[in-house]
Amino acid sequence: MENRKRFRKTMFKLLHKDKTSKARLGLLTTAHGKVCTPCFMPVGTQATIKTLSADEIKSCNAEMLMANAYHLYLRPGEEVLKKAKGIHKFMSWDGPIMTDSGGYQIFSLAALRKVKKGGVEFNSHIDGSKHFMTPEKIIEFQNILGSDIMMPLDECLHYPVSRNNVEESLKITFDWAKRSKKAFRKQKAENRRQKLFGIIQGSTYLDLRKVAAAEIVGLDFDGYAIGGVAVGEPSELIHEVTEYTADLLPEKKVRYLMGVGTPLDMLDAIAEGIDLFDCVVPTRNGRNGQAFTWNGELQLRNAPFKKDFDPIDKKCDCYACKNHTRAYIRHLFNTEEILGLRLVSLHNVYFYVKLIEVSRRAISENRFEEFKEEFRSRYKK
Amino acid sequence: MENRKRFRKTMFKLLHKDKTSKARLGLLTTAHGKVCTPCFMPVGTQATIKTLSADEIKSCNAEMLMANAYHLYLRPGEEVLKKAKGIHKFMSWDGPIMTDSGGYQIFSLAALRKVKKGGVEFNSHIDGSKHFMTPEKIIEFQNILGSDIMMPLDECLHYPVSRNNVEESLKITFDWAKRSKKAFRKQKAENRRQKLFGIIQGSTYLDLRKVAAAEIVGLDFDGYAIGGVAVGEPSELIHEVTEYTADLLPEKKVRYLMGVGTPLDMLDAIAEGIDLFDCVVPTRNGRNGQAFTWNGELQLRNAPFKKDFDPIDKKCDCYACKNHTRAYIRHLFNTEEILGLRLVSLHNVYFYVKLIEVSRRAISENRFEEFKEEFRSRYKK
Repeated sequence: MENRKRFRKTMFKLLHKDKTSKARLGLLTTAHGKVCTPCFMPVGTQATIKTLSADEIKSCNAEMLMANAYHLYLRPGEEVLKKAKGIHKFMSWDGPIMTDSGGYQIFSLAALRKVKKGGVEFNSHIDGSKHFMTPEKIIEFQNILGSDIMMPLDECLHYPVSRNNVEESLKITFDWAKRSKKAFRKQKAENRRQKLFGIIQGSTYLDLRKVAAAEIVGLDFDGYAIGGVAVGEPSELIHEVTEYTADLLPEKKVRYLMGVGTPLDMLDAIAEGIDLFDCVVPTRNGRNGQAFTWNGELQLRNAPFKKDFDPIDKKCDCYACKNHTRAYIRHLFNTEEILGLRLVSLHNVYFYVKLIEVSRRAISENRFEEFKEEFRSRYKK
Repeated sequence: MENRKRFRKTMFKLLHKDKTSKARLGLLTTAHGKVCTPCFMPVGTQATIKTLSADEIKSCNAEMLMANAYHLYLRPGEEVLKKAKGIHKFMSWDGPIMTDSGGYQIFSLAALRKVKKGGVEFNSHIDGSKHFMTPEKIIEFQNILGSDIMMPLDECLHYPVSRNNVEESLKITFDWAKRSKKAFRKQKAENRRQKLFGIIQGSTYLDLRKVAAAEIVGLDFDGYAIGGVAVGEPSELIHEVTEYTADLLPEKKVRYLMGVGTPLDMLDAIAEGIDLFDCVVPTRNGRNGQAFTWNGELQLRNAPFKKDFDPIDKKCDCYACKNHTRAYIRHLFNTEEILGLRLVSLHNVYFYVKLIEVSRRAISENRFEEFKEEFRSRYKK
């Protein structure tokens, strides 16, 4: 028990604080390796980063992936993942994996959901089958997944939402957090190297965020996630809530901003003290032909790229930029060829990881604020 | 002029003839490298082997690719390919590329086509735009593409078709072949290393095949293609026509059987004296979850693979088999994830190339017939 506590306490090491912003450098230790923070996690909802292979993800220098317990619970399901000996073996990724509980997905995808005291009843978004998910059950399932970092079941509300609804919802999320922590403690010994984060909700009500943070931090999790942001509110509000909530979190624990975001949103959040990011934007937008570059965003389907034989980004060393032109990629989108989706997704993930890597360098040199504003001034949307 | 003739004459070197069948070993010399025959060419109709990257095609040990002039003429079009300096640079493939003229596609995809003396008028299958394709124009376009081996415009009939129609059609194909040869000769000096094949049509009428072969061979092409097979006729007829026609071709020129086929069809055709193959089956069926293995065909979407943690084929060294299980691939198909299409396509191309490689070994050891029958006895459809 003592060993376990010690291991948990040293999960995150704060290495350096930028002198020009609240940005931080850290080192996260997981059962599948160490991760430098700030860190961007590509999203592999269904145990695959959409269109990309594990080798390609590695070529992007991504260190940690994100997967989704709700989706994997429905397909392929507990039995298959148990027999596969967990998500790492199932998807052939030997680096760290974080799994979201899927609270957000239950509340955004599933039909006929009903929050009861014990958990949440919902109909699968795939086949309508009825399920009852409890905080204990999703911890148990993430235990089967063997993810390095797991998230508790929570209720994630959309924006806007009334103060009353948020207050009621926070009670449920807090109750579920306590039960998750308890279930987590009961985990089998062999999986004790898994970590559990707490999630701070509270919508855009700062005083409710404060209450939620105090309650969740009081339960002493391995790290803290800020949830319920980027759910429809304007960018200014995302950052007001993020900065306010980050300030409420213990300095020596890792901080994860769920589901954010665009390159500029990530840089702002780093300056607000955030360490971990996950977002579907690089792959989702990549599949639509939108590429992120050091000079801004490009829609590669557009006509001007028809005879443009430059790479997506001349400064980029990814496979797509080293081997292919904008004209070829536009042709692939124009002819609905899958290689097009792959090349832009690959480039975007590479770019996101690189952007965070360069951010870490700027933090280590105490010039993050300057770097961020320089990037912003060049970046055309 | 003398140099050019010499180069053309040495394009194909017949190295060995199997003592148990009509199978042959050869070496094909192209402007982008040498190719051992028999050889299977993966099909990249639109300058991309569907779902796969050039690196992956190389990892499959594929030596020569197939692309389609008709498709590339429509999209991205002449101007883009001219500016790209040809198809090799456009798609980033530095090995040999053969281009089909697209005769088959004009006759199977395009609407309102009308064969006139000069060529064929058709409406694009993409946007309905009107085009007039002539033998000269498609040679000129393949000159722009810079493909290593080009095919002349021909008329490819479906099965069944009346003798009268075949006779009429052969006149057109022969006329177009003559004009193609003439246009090819007029090519600019810098592209003289391109090669032009003649195509033997004639449907299933053996005596018409004989006439067609005599006419086309009389024009002295760099190699000969057998067209108009696998267009709806039963397998026995494919092989009757293939063997009969192959026997009519000069021994020292390379022989290419267009659009064939399944693993068993290819092995039979090798035994009938065929050197080159192209087929969409490995990628098209791969995208439907059908995998080819040394023990036969598997439909990986099927329920029995749900908890099957073997690779697609234990004997296979492809990326998919070395890294992933049938259960994972089934999950990818079940959740409509693109990585599934990629992994099975990759495996199938690897398998096809390997099957032909192993066939070459069997030919060199004068046991091709035995190898073929052994393979057939294990192969479950």
